[in-house]
Amino acid sequence: MSSVPEIVIIGGGFGGLDAARALAGAPVRVTILDRHNYHLFQPLLYQVATASLSPGDIASPIRWVLRRQSNITVLLADARAIDTVANQVQLDPGHGREAIAYDYLILAAGATHAYFGHPEWGNHAPGLKTLDDALEIRRQVLLAFEAAERETDPDAQRRLLTFVIVGGGPTGVELAGALAEIARQSLKQDFRAIRPESARILLIEGGPRLLSTFPEALSAAAHASLTRLGVEVRTSSIVTTVDADGVGIGDQRITAQTVLWAAGVAASPLAKSLGVDLDRAGRVAAEPTLAVAGHPRIFVAGDMCALAQDGALLPGVAQVAKQEGAHAARNVLRAINGQPLAPFRYRDYGNMATIGRGSAVAEIGSLKASGWFAWLIWLFIHIFWLIGFRNRASVLGEWAWSYVTLQRRVRLITGERLWPGSRRL
Amino acid sequence: MSSVPEIVIIGGGFGGLDAARALAGAPVRVTILDRHNYHLFQPLLYQVATASLSPGDIASPIRWVLRRQSNITVLLADARAIDTVANQVQLDPGHGREAIAYDYLILAAGATHAYFGHPEWGNHAPGLKTLDDALEIRRQVLLAFEAAERETDPDAQRRLLTFVIVGGGPTGVELAGALAEIARQSLKQDFRAIRPESARILLIEGGPRLLSTFPEALSAAAHASLTRLGVEVRTSSIVTTVDADGVGIGDQRITAQTVLWAAGVAASPLAKSLGVDLDRAGRVAAEPTLAVAGHPRIFVAGDMCALAQDGALLPGVAQVAKQEGAHAARNVLRAINGQPLAPFRYRDYGNMATIGRGSAVAEIGSLKASGWFAWLIWLFIHIFWLIGFRNRASVLGEWAWSYVTLQRRVRLITGERLWPGSRRL
Repeated sequence: MSSVPEIVIIGGGFGGLDAARALAGAPVRVTILDRHNYHLFQPLLYQVATASLSPGDIASPIRWVLRRQSNITVLLADARAIDTVANQVQLDPGHGREAIAYDYLILAAGATHAYFGHPEWGNHAPGLKTLDDALEIRRQVLLAFEAAERETDPDAQRRLLTFVIVGGGPTGVELAGALAEIARQSLKQDFRAIRPESARILLIEGGPRLLSTFPEALSAAAHASLTRLGVEVRTSSIVTTVDADGVGIGDQRITAQTVLWAAGVAASPLAKSLGVDLDRAGRVAAEPTLAVAGHPRIFVAGDMCALAQDGALLPGVAQVAKQEGAHAARNVLRAINGQPLAPFRYRDYGNMATIGRGSAVAEIGSLKASGWFAWLIWLFIHIFWLIGFRNRASVLGEWAWSYVTLQRRVRLITGERLWPGSRRL
Repeated sequence: MSSVPEIVIIGGGFGGLDAARALAGAPVRVTILDRHNYHLFQPLLYQVATASLSPGDIASPIRWVLRRQSNITVLLADARAIDTVANQVQLDPGHGREAIAYDYLILAAGATHAYFGHPEWGNHAPGLKTLDDALEIRRQVLLAFEAAERETDPDAQRRLLTFVIVGGGPTGVELAGALAEIARQSLKQDFRAIRPESARILLIEGGPRLLSTFPEALSAAAHASLTRLGVEVRTSSIVTTVDADGVGIGDQRITAQTVLWAAGVAASPLAKSLGVDLDRAGRVAAEPTLAVAGHPRIFVAGDMCALAQDGALLPGVAQVAKQEGAHAARNVLRAINGQPLAPFRYRDYGNMATIGRGSAVAEIGSLKASGWFAWLIWLFIHIFWLIGFRNRASVLGEWAWSYVTLQRRVRLITGERLWPGSRRL
């Protein structure tokens, strides 16, 4: 080992960033890699997809967030493989440094959406993991209303105004609620040939209830709130096909222009290069210390990490990733100092999801709330938690304006092509 | 003519939007077409390209801006040709309505950048006309600094940190000033391997001075301000090649990763379908009434319109487009009512360009100002003039924050690929 230990962190999400912060001031050299130049506040990504917030409101350059931490170098790079023999990370070639050696590695590259073994569904049903995903969803949703306004065939209009969301977890619930508000409130006055409020919004969940990780009473509250907003909620419904024309649920077909994917996720394919056993979702089984079995120099955090606590796998949420990232970094420092590693213990501060304006569900310790009060809790926690004071002020301003006017300020269709497959603008 | 006259407006820019507004409440049916769903406040587009403002700060959905005007239909459509015999506009096929009949047509489709007969230069030197252009420039500029940080070869680093802007009009001056501030101020603390303030920024102008439409004293002031910011200004320098490796000026080569185009423009190719004479920049020669010679039902406004006043062609700026759009609409109403058409007369309210924080040049009537005072004028006029109260508040907030912190909040690299030509993220 060189005199100053080199720690490489892969991923600038919640796990990687909190790992980096936990190494502030330590006598180590840290390099953090990400293939995006920004840290993304994922819990609000659905608000970019539904035209309420701008990308700049929920994303900050990683190197800006860490600018004062002088022992850290931030590199824009796509980590391609981990060479556990040479102890180095291989990067996308042709752009300067092509490998980075590590004494310790913290793997926090996150997850991407997965289509239950049907990757071809991805062409018709975008998921929501990155800013570009969110802009693509915003584009497809707004374009569907525009196309319907110009369409003359009523069947085609109905198809354009049908939106299917697959997956009834927090992301699916939040997308469905926001889409319903867009159709019934924000766009109400703006069209002449169509009535946007006639749009049909379906939320399809394979399990018996929405928000399966929440208490049953909150699942029921979310279901009722969405129904009041005009969302058709279908539980115990397994999507069997997704194509350009809509979705199939068993032998029933729903014809829809827009299908959004909020169901399965899979860990970053980078995990495969470790050569260790992965679970069905591609996650690395971690030891209680967050080290990878057989690789004492490698730790794993966040959505790439499979770790059970009290008999259940920890969920892929921001709080777990943050706590794991910080813990992995502290264990790296312990290893460097020859101290015994500490086991990780997740402290659950709560769980919440918004449904719409003034409507949310929240579970914090023994407190269970729904409706207005839950929404206020949701709002303050998210504002407080946003990275950067400047973003906080901006997001609060947007929300206050939207709350009063029912409008969404970022209703922009961007992207190089107008319609799918059409020529470049 | 049908009982209620049908007026079609092509283009939702400054010309088209003010034409639409001038028809509010008139006993006509209006359809406004644009291939984007938003009106863009172009004078601030360079601030999106240089990471100060978000797209949502300077763009608003056209149908939202016009939502209360009940005689107007807004359609997202790419007008392909004008059939002056059948009196209809042909649209991009396959998306509902494929043609729209008009009794009167107002052509305000604007201009795009043009490369002096070298369209292949466009692959290496993006111009700045649309939101997508601005996001592409932002992406290339930020990516150059990221790539330099990762690069190990000093020559390659120098190439990555060289930025060439071609064209010394307002857009070129504003881009150069903002780039200099990014390199010398905003990014200062954020890198470890490179010194962003060592970036080389060149502004190349073919004519003898910058801002050729401004008084000479203001051109000199802008030149001096840019030099103080560290921009190398080269006047009387004609770019003869643009390729992946930089630009040639005669037999001198400047090796640069990033070349931005702020030079020539050409009117929308839609003008060609009229079958009338066009000038060298593809513009339609208008009669003093803004009607097209030989086509009394067609009027033209904005960057598509070539009209001389007092011996000089009116410039392609927002104020000209707005006044022409409104005038064309009023002349359409006169034609419908059987009244004589009025000739157009441009009222010049002034001319201004920013160079950086607290630095601008402005000419308003006989007042000529540069420096701080000009910048304050610039700021208040632009804030006052922005569409929508909400955007005003947001932009003012961003500017205040940037002014104090020297930071830029929207330093995000978005787009589906990481590096040019690399695989999809």
